[in-house]
Amino acid sequence: MNQAINAPTAAVLLIGNELLSGRTQDINLSYIARRLQEKGIRVKQARIIPDNERTIVDSINELRAQHDYLFTTGGIGPTHDDITADCVAKAFGVELPINEEAERILNAYFREREIESNKERLRMARIPVGASLVDNPVSAAPGFRMDNVFVFAGVPRIMQAMLDSVLPELSEGTVMKNRTVTCNLGEGTIAAGLRTLQEQYPDVEIGSYPGKMDDQYLLSLVATSLSIERLDEVCSRIEQLIDQLGGKITVKPG
Amino acid sequence: MNQAINAPTAAVLLIGNELLSGRTQDINLSYIARRLQEKGIRVKQARIIPDNERTIVDSINELRAQHDYLFTTGGIGPTHDDITADCVAKAFGVELPINEEAERILNAYFREREIESNKERLRMARIPVGASLVDNPVSAAPGFRMDNVFVFAGVPRIMQAMLDSVLPELSEGTVMKNRTVTCNLGEGTIAAGLRTLQEQYPDVEIGSYPGKMDDQYLLSLVATSLSIERLDEVCSRIEQLIDQLGGKITVKPG
Repeated sequence: MNQAINAPTAAVLLIGNELLSGRTQDINLSYIARRLQEKGIRVKQARIIPDNERTIVDSINELRAQHDYLFTTGGIGPTHDDITADCVAKAFGVELPINEEAERILNAYFREREIESNKERLRMARIPVGASLVDNPVSAAPGFRMDNVFVFAGVPRIMQAMLDSVLPELSEGTVMKNRTVTCNLGEGTIAAGLRTLQEQYPDVEIGSYPGKMDDQYLLSLVATSLSIERLDEVCSRIEQLIDQLGGKITVKPG
Repeated sequence: MNQAINAPTAAVLLIGNELLSGRTQDINLSYIARRLQEKGIRVKQARIIPDNERTIVDSINELRAQHDYLFTTGGIGPTHDDITADCVAKAFGVELPINEEAERILNAYFREREIESNKERLRMARIPVGASLVDNPVSAAPGFRMDNVFVFAGVPRIMQAMLDSVLPELSEGTVMKNRTVTCNLGEGTIAAGLRTLQEQYPDVEIGSYPGKMDDQYLLSLVATSLSIERLDEVCSRIEQLIDQLGGKITVKPG
């Protein structure tokens, strides 16, 4: 995988006590990972951290320095436990004033729905100096982009809309292709053959994932590469291997 | 939350390319978090990282130094992409020989099921010097404990059995109690009152989580504290607040 390819990298920072207490099951990471992958951007790491200022600020500064992009989710609502915008401002060493455009968007939304505009609600219009707004078509309160850091809501429907709206802004990388061959062999049966194959094709990443489908045991062998030709080669070698070992291919590579 | 209480801390390291590509949705973190919480152990951070030696070794060394316990999931199967045991050995600077007890357990399991015992399968018996085995009642191949690091499988059913089997070994902390009051108010409506309440009760953590139940909007206000008395006080203050604001309590605190 050490080819000189254009592969922007990203990290994801999932913020919220509820994710670390087991109260809430995160589903944002897998959505972000899949959408970025379609653009050729590699998610290299994700962290799940509590609503703690020091932890959030340090994590933002560490991850934004290490990756082309950082995406955060959670902590941008109106309540006292929503401190992500404050932490981003602190991480960048800038002020966090009410942003006029954000205020206008929020007040228009409140007026239309006869929701009271109060000081707490307008906290959601506080945007770090230098950031640009990210549209929230679901509930108006915007996310924002500060340099290479994208700050999104935690509610999946809102987060997804925010990510979708910024995708065109992101640098595109070379999109990795992948193919899956599934079979009924145990991992230990095919492991030696796969290891040899991985050594012969260092430019193709081969992953082995045991699982179940319709309550039947199933081994998924996933090959990932930049080159369709190399994938074709590796997958037909995997199929040969399964055949030699007396296994059954349950699904042909797509 | 700055009381002098006995609160062991933990970090969780979820290892696997499939978690960062969006192929697999992690469900291990929430299980680990809930079980540890019942023992009074606080999960302070989780990281999701790829099957990359440098990243795994560095993450293990960073997180085991910062927390009382570190739990890892994934990467202990028989295939070439299973490198967690190698990385733990490297992180601790010890060898990774075949462990006799682990070999005996695996061979007994293979014999019973007429599975071939081969070199690749016995890779799962390689255990860092100084580690103790963690029982795997599902598929025999053991996890292990090295100092304060617990190394578990990634398959949820196996991971859960491994965690359950080591729970008695862990130091118990003071168990936090929590109560939830749910209502139909918007977060922005109750935010000011909640903020004041949080300031008055710094020893109670108050979280605000908008969501849905049966397609109806619902705001969950979760209070967490060491003291049942303080929780009672805070929850009745929250109920008063909801009432004053013209809201409706949808579920009484349990």
